[in-house]
Amino acid sequence: MSLLLAITGWHVESWRERFSALLPDLPIVTLGEPFDRRAVHYVASWKHPEGSLAGLPNLAAIFSLGAGVDHLFTDSRLPHAPIARVIDPDLTTRMSEYVVMHCLMQLRQQRRYERQQREKSWDDDRHQPAAREVRVGVMGLGELGQDAARKLQVIGFDVAGWSRSPKVIEGLATFSGEDGLAAFLARTDILVVLLPHTPETEGILNRPLLARLARDGRLGGPVLINAGRGKLQVETDILAALDAGELREAVLDVFETEPLPQDSRLWTHPAVTVTPHNSAMSAPEAVADQIAAQIRRLEAGGELQNVVDPSRGY
Amino acid sequence: MSLLLAITGWHVESWRERFSALLPDLPIVTLGEPFDRRAVHYVASWKHPEGSLAGLPNLAAIFSLGAGVDHLFTDSRLPHAPIARVIDPDLTTRMSEYVVMHCLMQLRQQRRYERQQREKSWDDDRHQPAAREVRVGVMGLGELGQDAARKLQVIGFDVAGWSRSPKVIEGLATFSGEDGLAAFLARTDILVVLLPHTPETEGILNRPLLARLARDGRLGGPVLINAGRGKLQVETDILAALDAGELREAVLDVFETEPLPQDSRLWTHPAVTVTPHNSAMSAPEAVADQIAAQIRRLEAGGELQNVVDPSRGY
Ligand SMILES: NC(=O)c1ccc[n+]([C@@H]2O[C@H](COP(=O)([O-])OP(=O)(O)OC[C@H]3O[C@@H](n4cnc5c(N)ncnc54)[C@H](OP(=O)(O)O)[C@@H]3O)[C@@H](O)[C@H]2O)c1
Ligand SMILES: NC(=O)c1ccc[n+]([C@@H]2O[C@H](COP(=O)([O-])OP(=O)(O)OC[C@H]3O[C@@H](n4cnc5c(N)ncnc54)[C@H](OP(=O)(O)O)[C@@H]3O)[C@@H](O)[C@H]2O)c1
Repeated sequence: MSLLLAITGWHVESWRERFSALLPDLPIVTLGEPFDRRAVHYVASWKHPEGSLAGLPNLAAIFSLGAGVDHLFTDSRLPHAPIARVIDPDLTTRMSEYVVMHCLMQLRQQRRYERQQREKSWDDDRHQPAAREVRVGVMGLGELGQDAARKLQVIGFDVAGWSRSPKVIEGLATFSGEDGLAAFLARTDILVVLLPHTPETEGILNRPLLARLARDGRLGGPVLINAGRGKLQVETDILAALDAGELREAVLDVFETEPLPQDSRLWTHPAVTVTPHNSAMSAPEAVADQIAAQIRRLEAGGELQNVVDPSRGY
Repeated sequence: MSLLLAITGWHVESWRERFSALLPDLPIVTLGEPFDRRAVHYVASWKHPEGSLAGLPNLAAIFSLGAGVDHLFTDSRLPHAPIARVIDPDLTTRMSEYVVMHCLMQLRQQRRYERQQREKSWDDDRHQPAAREVRVGVMGLGELGQDAARKLQVIGFDVAGWSRSPKVIEGLATFSGEDGLAAFLARTDILVVLLPHTPETEGILNRPLLARLARDGRLGGPVLINAGRGKLQVETDILAALDAGELREAVLDVFETEPLPQDSRLWTHPAVTVTPHNSAMSAPEAVADQIAAQIRRLEAGGELQNVVDPSRGY
């Protein structure tokens, strides 16, 4: 029995060391070396090459090394083993740091005050809307979205959320599905996107959707913050909406192509803030701990946790 | 019986309108016109001229139109009437917005990522300390400090507070007085200052104090955020500490002289963020409401609330 590390673009040897320390009795193999395919019971994957997990007859579980599992479903030959994702409270906390900071920077007009500092002069209008006057809409009410929504509420924002299935969350206005989308967008000044990338959500952040955001808000125009996945967004549409004044600012941690190409206008557009897909990085130690615990649980006859539904893609 | 508006540097007529609407039966007089000094039972002051409140024999209460009362105590001829301050939940919320935003901008290295965006290139180190690895110390645990401390804790920071008198606040490490100051500073990576300006606190933010902040923190050096009062800080000391690398960054909403003089190095120092004393402005409507309610309460035989202790100066 072995654990196969199927990783591209990430240092495989450090993952091997982590897992060896946590599971000293479990042989660990990698794609770059010969191994007995029948012995592989577990796979830990990060963007494994297409087809590389085919022909593993005794596979009991696939673990994603990152928070998203979209990288798994791009493999058309992915085996039909159960897939588990990592739920890491540390990662969730970091995402909420990012979301709360960027919502506050919009609320408090941080760019404007930085400009005034550079010009060494304050203009006369020092009024700020209060957080309760600004409506934040969180798309995606999963692990990340719910935590961000709660913390935004503590800060004072007027928060609502949108998800696939209807949700009742105390104190939070919730909307769901295609039916709830129009009303959700119409009451949103800052759109915070924490959706997974699935066939249903791909390209959802397009110009028609952005055009449905609130236009009567206190920020002088709607703001988009996407920290979900780059494939959710249509970047030419976002730029067009910014140029047309339909969108006031965009804060993007993720991109259609990563790393963001040098010639993208997103780098230089005055109303765009970009960050290098680091709004919430999982600590490899926490990820390895959690996967090792899952393997031990399965070996002891327990159930796999945090299982992903392949029909939904998340 | 009348209410005297004793105001400089603020539009007195709009205050008159607000109070007239709320207290239609109470005559309202201002310093700029002749009035019967014996009729004045109440004063609403914002930076009234020295001595202008002397000789009001029937004065029952002085109300500050701003959150601080330090502007009252600069008047050596201030009458011995009870002084009430405004406690405005809206103002408190706004201050916490400011404090949480600036702590997060330090944690998340926002300046660094903005620089990288301008340079169109991400460096390889995308690691961020987590909020729980960063120790925030809140100086002043009054209305403002307690709210900020609680919200910083919700975001995940490791928070402690310091006040004059010992305090027990659930879940918060507290320190007090001169005896507790060294230990408080030694565990502080980000110093958030929400103290009032009193004879005891004047100039407290000096180089020896800054030198006692933690040097082993995760931010690469201590950070000062002062949104209390400018007279708390010694600006030449702050600049010297920044230049000497003893302080990593300073975020200042208040200044020794306001508005900040054009020739101050604080405008241009690369490690300084300045804002125009608008971290938390009270809505005049809320202030007027609260003072009108106090006057009605007193007229009905009730007690004055939010009374300031002149011996402490806050
Ligand atoms: N930028 C980064 O550094 C970073 C880091 C970590 C994660 N992420 C991204 O964040 C995503 C969300 O993470 P999570 O842990 O919160 O995921 P999660 O717990 O699976 O939650 C996903 C949420 O999205 C909703 N959703 C999915 N498809 C939808 C659809 N078609 N229409 C409406 N709502 C839909 C789900 O609705 P239901 O509640 O009805 O199921 C759920 O509320 C991840 O998939 C990943 O892509 C990014
Ligand atoms: N920048 C702005 O826009 C803005 C807006 C509003 C207010 N402010 C400033 O913020 C200040 C604080 O407001 P607040 O409503 O929180 O005041 P507060 O409720 O009176 O609280 C003051 C806090 O400071 C502590 N303190 C006072 N003197 C001290 C000393 N010598 N040593 C240690 N601690 C001391 C007090 O200790 P105890 O708890 O032991 O009494 C108390 O915890 C105001 O005075 C005002 O100057 C600034």
